[in-house]
Amino acid sequence: MSKTSLQPPRGTRDFYPEELRFRNWLFGQWRQTALQFGFEEVDAPILEHAELYMRKAGEEIVEQLYHFHLHGRHLALRSEFTPSLARMVMARQGSLKLPIRWFSIPQCWRYERMSRGRRREHYQWNMDIWGASEVTAEAELMAAIFASLDGMGLASGDVRMRVNHRALLEETLRDGFLKERPEVFEPLCVIIDKIDKIGGVAVAEQLSAPDGAVALPRTAADEVVGRLQVKSLDEAAQSVPDDSPAIADLRRLFDLLDGYGVADRVEFDASVVRGLAYYTGIVFEGFDAAGELRAVCGGGRYDRLAETLGGRPIPAVGFGFGDAVIAELLADRGKLPDLPRRVDAVVYPMSEAERATAQRLARSLRQTGYSVELVLADTKAKRVFSDADKAGAARVYMIGPDEMARDVVKVRDLASREERDEPLPS
Amino acid sequence: MSKTSLQPPRGTRDFYPEELRFRNWLFGQWRQTALQFGFEEVDAPILEHAELYMRKAGEEIVEQLYHFHLHGRHLALRSEFTPSLARMVMARQGSLKLPIRWFSIPQCWRYERMSRGRRREHYQWNMDIWGASEVTAEAELMAAIFASLDGMGLASGDVRMRVNHRALLEETLRDGFLKERPEVFEPLCVIIDKIDKIGGVAVAEQLSAPDGAVALPRTAADEVVGRLQVKSLDEAAQSVPDDSPAIADLRRLFDLLDGYGVADRVEFDASVVRGLAYYTGIVFEGFDAAGELRAVCGGGRYDRLAETLGGRPIPAVGFGFGDAVIAELLADRGKLPDLPRRVDAVVYPMSEAERATAQRLARSLRQTGYSVELVLADTKAKRVFSDADKAGAARVYMIGPDEMARDVVKVRDLASREERDEPLPS
Repeated sequence: MSKTSLQPPRGTRDFYPEELRFRNWLFGQWRQTALQFGFEEVDAPILEHAELYMRKAGEEIVEQLYHFHLHGRHLALRSEFTPSLARMVMARQGSLKLPIRWFSIPQCWRYERMSRGRRREHYQWNMDIWGASEVTAEAELMAAIFASLDGMGLASGDVRMRVNHRALLEETLRDGFLKERPEVFEPLCVIIDKIDKIGGVAVAEQLSAPDGAVALPRTAADEVVGRLQVKSLDEAAQSVPDDSPAIADLRRLFDLLDGYGVADRVEFDASVVRGLAYYTGIVFEGFDAAGELRAVCGGGRYDRLAETLGGRPIPAVGFGFGDAVIAELLADRGKLPDLPRRVDAVVYPMSEAERATAQRLARSLRQTGYSVELVLADTKAKRVFSDADKAGAARVYMIGPDEMARDVVKVRDLASREERDEPLPS
Repeated sequence: MSKTSLQPPRGTRDFYPEELRFRNWLFGQWRQTALQFGFEEVDAPILEHAELYMRKAGEEIVEQLYHFHLHGRHLALRSEFTPSLARMVMARQGSLKLPIRWFSIPQCWRYERMSRGRRREHYQWNMDIWGASEVTAEAELMAAIFASLDGMGLASGDVRMRVNHRALLEETLRDGFLKERPEVFEPLCVIIDKIDKIGGVAVAEQLSAPDGAVALPRTAADEVVGRLQVKSLDEAAQSVPDDSPAIADLRRLFDLLDGYGVADRVEFDASVVRGLAYYTGIVFEGFDAAGELRAVCGGGRYDRLAETLGGRPIPAVGFGFGDAVIAELLADRGKLPDLPRRVDAVVYPMSEAERATAQRLARSLRQTGYSVELVLADTKAKRVFSDADKAGAARVYMIGPDEMARDVVKVRDLASREERDEPLPS
């Protein structure tokens, strides 16, 4: 095997023990928050029907789908969890009690050009509520995100949330070009989502490209981009009717966030639309307050996804929260947890004559819940102590001829270097 | 979307909450045992270089590889974890402290014809020790398997282990056809592994098929099959030299198993060779004592795998333990754990006027570690109680105008139906 192929496939990761300890810690944080919010965990296959992901709004996530034909089937590695979730809910529609509160921690794949250390796979915490049409659901999910960030030890100012409402943009454009061409709304949102990355001018260019999916006149495109600069809800309210449902939803959201004590960590931002075609209502994204990283998490309401997939409509809202940006942020803020290896005991038979006794001792210590490493070969004491130190062991249990004769084990505490005899288990 | 495509791809599973609770329980059992044995968890990508799996001994696992070409690369969904593990160890050879004790719980894929409820994916607990050449390593792994089975509540007689030694078969055949054609040993083992499924006569036929990988004379094939019937170590010892290293290893293994108190759950069986080409030494498989199911787990020593992949030799031994057969066995023995959904509290604002107070209460209960479901829409009390019952909730916290006026919450215990007032958090 070549040197190259000793590495995992390009864009993927191995998890050596130290990396897996961090992954388990992060999953534990996510799982704990989700359980505290009364959510149940679910999962679906990492290999899915490719058709589940095929949407035509020009989304990056669809263009980067990891898909292939195998034995006459068109399959894909999941790029996001929501389509699988929709499939699962729709398959049991009628027998599931609504609202559903489900979470998952799927690995998701996207085939993108490798740059700036981006990878082709990541883990993504998802929380979704199906069957709740009110903004209380969005507020609950945003509260869960903040609870999780707090649990990780981040300061309350480290991550801020931007919110908007897709219907607000739709309402402001309804009397214009959308009246004739409502189908361009989804690709329009997909293009607008790139504004942080490519800037307003490039967005206007893409919106007005004659061969593009939206193909607006340049003046209309400039007007759309202009509206994205609005940063206050009051200002946004001026360009829509007084009874705008989108404005009412957003005002209610801020009230609800106040009830959770997190309203000051959230701001209105008309440029936030999220890059997935299926969102229909409130959309939100969390970002580091310093503005140096990609989005930490993002989500929104997608009330029409089930319909799009051929089912009855069910209101739904959810978010995704990846493992990459949060790891960078925790590192930047000095909040990465210290997760050294820990072993409670190393059991060391000083020669093969003591092995059976050492096995019995190891078994007994393990049954009490201890983590126990049993020395498997004839090894010098010096090496055993040095290895035990590196393994983060608390104690070494030594059994030699002298201990055997006295029916004891010599226990050495590696921190204090104190030694004492303990009786052997019978 | 069609009805069919509401189902996961053929041979794969969705995990609804009840299935995921079982999966988490099982993974928890495995993880707990591995940690008690001082093992560290690792993982590798589910998508690997296909070349890692390409071996020529006719193994089913290679023939059923889920592989495809994508963007000029030949990739595969992992069918087993050992090749990834070998890659990981080899990539850090020199910097890793031996022996390594690693475990993992990968999902593995194989594309097989669907029959008898077999699936195309399963989860498999792996424990491996690299860098330990002595049989103490095999004994430690087998002790871990039994500890895990005991932890799941199975009786000590429910799963028995069969052991053999590949070198024993090799020693008995060394003076025969293997002298001229040592390369047929791996395909020979792969064919022999099918004996439980297809019987001795069919094995002899495959071994003697003129166009097969082994192509023995029929008499030689019959002789090989005859040797597989040996069920005692003493009998096996008669057909090899007195100083047979394989016999010595096996005798030592039984001594060591006695030290762990599990020797009576293990028996010698000359027909056990395991179906993976790379095993070189002791091989073992666990099976239900009633003999009704496929193997519960299996493993062995594979000291030459690193070499085969182009690295320096490192002794290694490991096992795989899948999630399918153990689930069947637990069901058969009435030992499936009872894992209902549990929620500590349902918080119920009786109207929107009490919502902010309910949010504060939910937040406070969650911060103490409670699992709390917050009612998200205006709902009738009767429905809330019924839903809370179904969710396995212990208590419902109700807040109406009367409670607000008195600054309390009414707490109803769903089991006893008793109600009491508690002060609201400030």
